[in-house]
Amino acid sequence: MTDHALQELLDKQAITERLFDYARGVDRIDSELIRSVFHPDAQLDYGAMFAGTREEFAEFIGLVHPEMEAHSHHLSNISVTIDGERAGSETYVLAWLRARGGDAVNDTVTSGRYVDEWRRTRGEWRIVHRTYLHDTDSTRSAGTSGFPTTGSRDTSDPSYAALGLRFSEGA
Amino acid sequence: MTDHALQELLDKQAITERLFDYARGVDRIDSELIRSVFHPDAQLDYGAMFAGTREEFAEFIGLVHPEMEAHSHHLSNISVTIDGERAGSETYVLAWLRARGGDAVNDTVTSGRYVDEWRRTRGEWRIVHRTYLHDTDSTRSAGTSGFPTTGSRDTSDPSYAALGLRFSEGA
Amino acid sequence: MTDHALQELLDKQAITERLFDYARGVDRIDSELIRSVFHPDAQLDYGAMFAGTREEFAEFIGLVHPEMEAHSHHLSNISVTIDGERAGSETYVLAWLRARGGDAVNDTVTSGRYVDEWRRTRGEWRIVHRTYLHDTDSTRSAGTSGFPTTGSRDTSDPSYAALGLRFSEGA
Repeated sequence: MTDHALQELLDKQAITERLFDYARGVDRIDSELIRSVFHPDAQLDYGAMFAGTREEFAEFIGLVHPEMEAHSHHLSNISVTIDGERAGSETYVLAWLRARGGDAVNDTVTSGRYVDEWRRTRGEWRIVHRTYLHDTDSTRSAGTSGFPTTGSRDTSDPSYAALGLRFSEGA
Repeated sequence: MTDHALQELLDKQAITERLFDYARGVDRIDSELIRSVFHPDAQLDYGAMFAGTREEFAEFIGLVHPEMEAHSHHLSNISVTIDGERAGSETYVLAWLRARGGDAVNDTVTSGRYVDEWRRTRGEWRIVHRTYLHDTDSTRSAGTSGFPTTGSRDTSDPSYAALGLRFSEGA
Repeated sequence: MTDHALQELLDKQAITERLFDYARGVDRIDSELIRSVFHPDAQLDYGAMFAGTREEFAEFIGLVHPEMEAHSHHLSNISVTIDGERAGSETYVLAWLRARGGDAVNDTVTSGRYVDEWRRTRGEWRIVHRTYLHDTDSTRSAGTSGFPTTGSRDTSDPSYAALGLRFSEGA
């Protein structure tokens, strides 16, 4: 009973981490990381925005996101049901996307939910089917900004060193 | 010691899931799910917004939320203290509510915190007292929207199938 | 193996709770709580906003935040890698800061990431190095507000009683 309860906690934690990897993959424009979250045969259905395979999705992000000035996908409310080697989850997402067009800078804020079907194969949880449900979005001219964007949208971003435990002083 | 530490993790996870059920209950306008999070005798104090029982609160949500076009309650920063059969928690909430009045579409964004007192009865954690503390809110005309709302605010929403592990292909 | 997996879950939970303590410390302007999250020798680098020690940071928050009308730091996407007595983490933050200047009320919304290096000393995880990476920010005139701020920015805030399990009815 205790072992079963611990295993379920571990599975929920593993799925939660995969979802954060997804957001990291999108925000850092890391195609490999995006693909790693999905099963090779996964179907991704983002409604009016996108539908296709993980390869097509990673390519789509690689085309669309570099055009933006900044983007961040804040995930919350991660509900997970585990049943042996499969699982279902719902995840809330609040995304902030900043785009420049000529002199205009626009902020798009979107709210929605990822509804995912998961399979564990060879010990690894991956999404086999994703449905993105859209709550609402709003685009308007950006307000005044006080600080420059730091970090980067590639694997030189400091988060990779920290999560890989490569600290500068060899700590 | 290890068993005690595992039990505390399980209790924190259970309370976290109940909080997500609350948000799901409100966002899907699921009265039964809302009520299930609270003890039958629970007192809910939302300050200037609402005060009453769980039945009154579920009724209040059932009246107010269908009038809106969309709403999502993003929960974060869930701090929990467990002591045997009782617990205390603080949860941050960022809610986005879209309302239409005639031709005008307005977005209200609110930030606040739920401070909850919990009791475990017959193995189930439920809130016995809730205080909602309001940080701030802002209502303004909505920006341009690019995508329609998908999913639904009832139990036909795809999240119910996923969390109930009822996948379309019988996966 | 099971013990190792449980220990890793406990470490991730402990680090997550320390991060929530950080947000609580800043939002409640609790210098002691802020300092408790960092090692005495910790280096904090918030880019163009701040650089210094934990004492200097707590002092900085104690000067800047009381000037604001409200502020909340919503944390999400907490990714943690554990390796014995050290760890690395990335945490997304969405902060809403409201300031009044004469008759003008302005809302600043910021999105960024904390990249932290952790050490466990005497059983306690503390940050030894923090880098804040800024995604973007936007300041604009606040919309209409419907509700007053409740709770307080000191230890009389109800969250302290709840997390300290000091409930009014001695429940």
